[in-house]
Amino acid sequence: MSYFLCDEFQKMEPYIPGEQPKDQAYIKLNANESSLPPSPRVFDAVSQSRIRGMGHYADPHCKQLRKAIGDVYGVNADRVFVGNGADEVLGFCFMSFFSPRMKLCFPDITYDFYRTYAKTNRIDFEQIPLDADFHVNVEDYIATDRDIVLANPNNPTGLALSVSDIERVVAVRPKRLVIIDEAYIDYGNESCIPLTEKYANLIVVQTFSKSRNLAGARIGFAIASKEIIEDMNKIKFTFNPFNMSAFALAAGSAAVQDTTYLEKCVHSVLATRVRVQKALEKMNFFVAEPHANFLFVSHPYISGGELCKMLKERGILVRHYDEARIRDYVRMTIGTGEEMDKVLQQLHEILQEVKACES
Amino acid sequence: MSYFLCDEFQKMEPYIPGEQPKDQAYIKLNANESSLPPSPRVFDAVSQSRIRGMGHYADPHCKQLRKAIGDVYGVNADRVFVGNGADEVLGFCFMSFFSPRMKLCFPDITYDFYRTYAKTNRIDFEQIPLDADFHVNVEDYIATDRDIVLANPNNPTGLALSVSDIERVVAVRPKRLVIIDEAYIDYGNESCIPLTEKYANLIVVQTFSKSRNLAGARIGFAIASKEIIEDMNKIKFTFNPFNMSAFALAAGSAAVQDTTYLEKCVHSVLATRVRVQKALEKMNFFVAEPHANFLFVSHPYISGGELCKMLKERGILVRHYDEARIRDYVRMTIGTGEEMDKVLQQLHEILQEVKACES
Repeated sequence: MSYFLCDEFQKMEPYIPGEQPKDQAYIKLNANESSLPPSPRVFDAVSQSRIRGMGHYADPHCKQLRKAIGDVYGVNADRVFVGNGADEVLGFCFMSFFSPRMKLCFPDITYDFYRTYAKTNRIDFEQIPLDADFHVNVEDYIATDRDIVLANPNNPTGLALSVSDIERVVAVRPKRLVIIDEAYIDYGNESCIPLTEKYANLIVVQTFSKSRNLAGARIGFAIASKEIIEDMNKIKFTFNPFNMSAFALAAGSAAVQDTTYLEKCVHSVLATRVRVQKALEKMNFFVAEPHANFLFVSHPYISGGELCKMLKERGILVRHYDEARIRDYVRMTIGTGEEMDKVLQQLHEILQEVKACES
Repeated sequence: MSYFLCDEFQKMEPYIPGEQPKDQAYIKLNANESSLPPSPRVFDAVSQSRIRGMGHYADPHCKQLRKAIGDVYGVNADRVFVGNGADEVLGFCFMSFFSPRMKLCFPDITYDFYRTYAKTNRIDFEQIPLDADFHVNVEDYIATDRDIVLANPNNPTGLALSVSDIERVVAVRPKRLVIIDEAYIDYGNESCIPLTEKYANLIVVQTFSKSRNLAGARIGFAIASKEIIEDMNKIKFTFNPFNMSAFALAAGSAAVQDTTYLEKCVHSVLATRVRVQKALEKMNFFVAEPHANFLFVSHPYISGGELCKMLKERGILVRHYDEARIRDYVRMTIGTGEEMDKVLQQLHEILQEVKACES
């Protein structure tokens, strides 16, 4: 730590992303990434002539991408905010609407960014426990007067709320802000975006990092009321007016228009997910009802930490959280069919080995 | 404004970037961009196979780019921070080291980001007046005990301080932080980067947006002590761990290694700058001693605002600041030789017109 770091940051605990070891070629199932390429249109959009013009700033108002996203979701471009990844979008939401005086809540088990940000910025936050089988209890969020951030589907559990349940939470207190983080919404779930037409206290955040296979390009967006988006843009123009690169704007605009390709990719992930879930259950794994591009699993014979370690030794990375309630679990991204065949094979061998040790 | 915007932001005045009108094809000399393409190596780096792998996150530690920059400047990678444009780098500097309790200073005429950020975040800032001919008075900065941000060369004036003068400022108070923003350093000036070896209270910020012709790719960096860079990385991991896209990391790593191309581009800008300065002085323009890729000029017969407007009508964008001390001036980027020939021709005609009106 330097002499100069502000006092309030001296105890911060930064978010820790899934590891990216380089010591060997791993099957990487620890960050909910996609092994599929982005839409063919992205290859055309990131052209030689685009690179030739890189000496110029891209449009800081990001009009083209905002319009392209708006068109796909049936909302006006002035209700769309775009950022350098959904994390930046969430960061600008938090920065704009949550100050240290304010009261926030989110589940005890969820995407760790919320806690990290709130803690670092001394926002008063409450972590509301999920119920025993990791479901969000909607009544808790109807009852509280705190602002709310909910990942739907939730991460790392993969469980989801219905739009009607979320609408009850949003509708009950119009002066309380609700952020719904829909990073994984495309994997067979219904989005809350249509609710933003009706409720001025709702922000829906999505990302191009999952279903659009563009994690490396850093594109996220928020849809909300025109006034909320205006506020976020003002904050952005104060901190980093040119937050979106010409690469991201071009790739994003091309990708979002290719809804056919999105559906094809999602379909392929869902088909693999069904197959892997069945195979895991046959091996006696518990699999939380999946709603995303990952599975949240546990096994009676082996702890989450041990399973994570043994898979890593076999060249497979999954995510384990060393936290009280979910220590027994690992989160495993749905990779390609071929990758998942290898994973199932390795899991089979691991279970044999564990059983042999026990007997 | 939404009901939800935090009180402290309700009066914010966001930074206003140079306009990007689309009503016609302009010669764009209002944002100090480059019309030259990036290094040929960038075209190779942003390859089809790179795009194919975009489904994966890029390295959040940005090791390759930090090492590539470190190698060029002779510092270890752990003393290099990289960000999504120099604005984000400055944002993380400010966020890490300047809290509302702290006292900051910078010139009254300089890059407006500093004032915008300080004002929005309620940092106590003092704007120290440049002297009558727009030079930084070094003694002012030696005398003050406030933290310091200086653009060197300064923007929009283009005037520069020597490294020895900056060293005096840095050395006099080792517990006072000094940020030197060297966005325009490559245009014939000496960098303070070597001083970061010796002084733990110095941060040097640079960008790939100017001399490396990559404004659209959003790449900036800071060089400082290992401890300062560690602090900034922690803050980054709290706000946006994956702040750098795979595009930016690849393009940046390729571009920074091509020092020959950098020199060639800089040489071409400097040659054009010399030629344009001479031509302008012949037309009776005052030209502040240029140290960057732009000229800061005024003319006895026409106000800055009027000149800016008349050039725009002729398809040429330059930057005018409607602020008391510099109202008479415009800032004009050095474009290609061909672009500048057109500009000189138009200026000639404008002056004829103005003279005709006056007589």
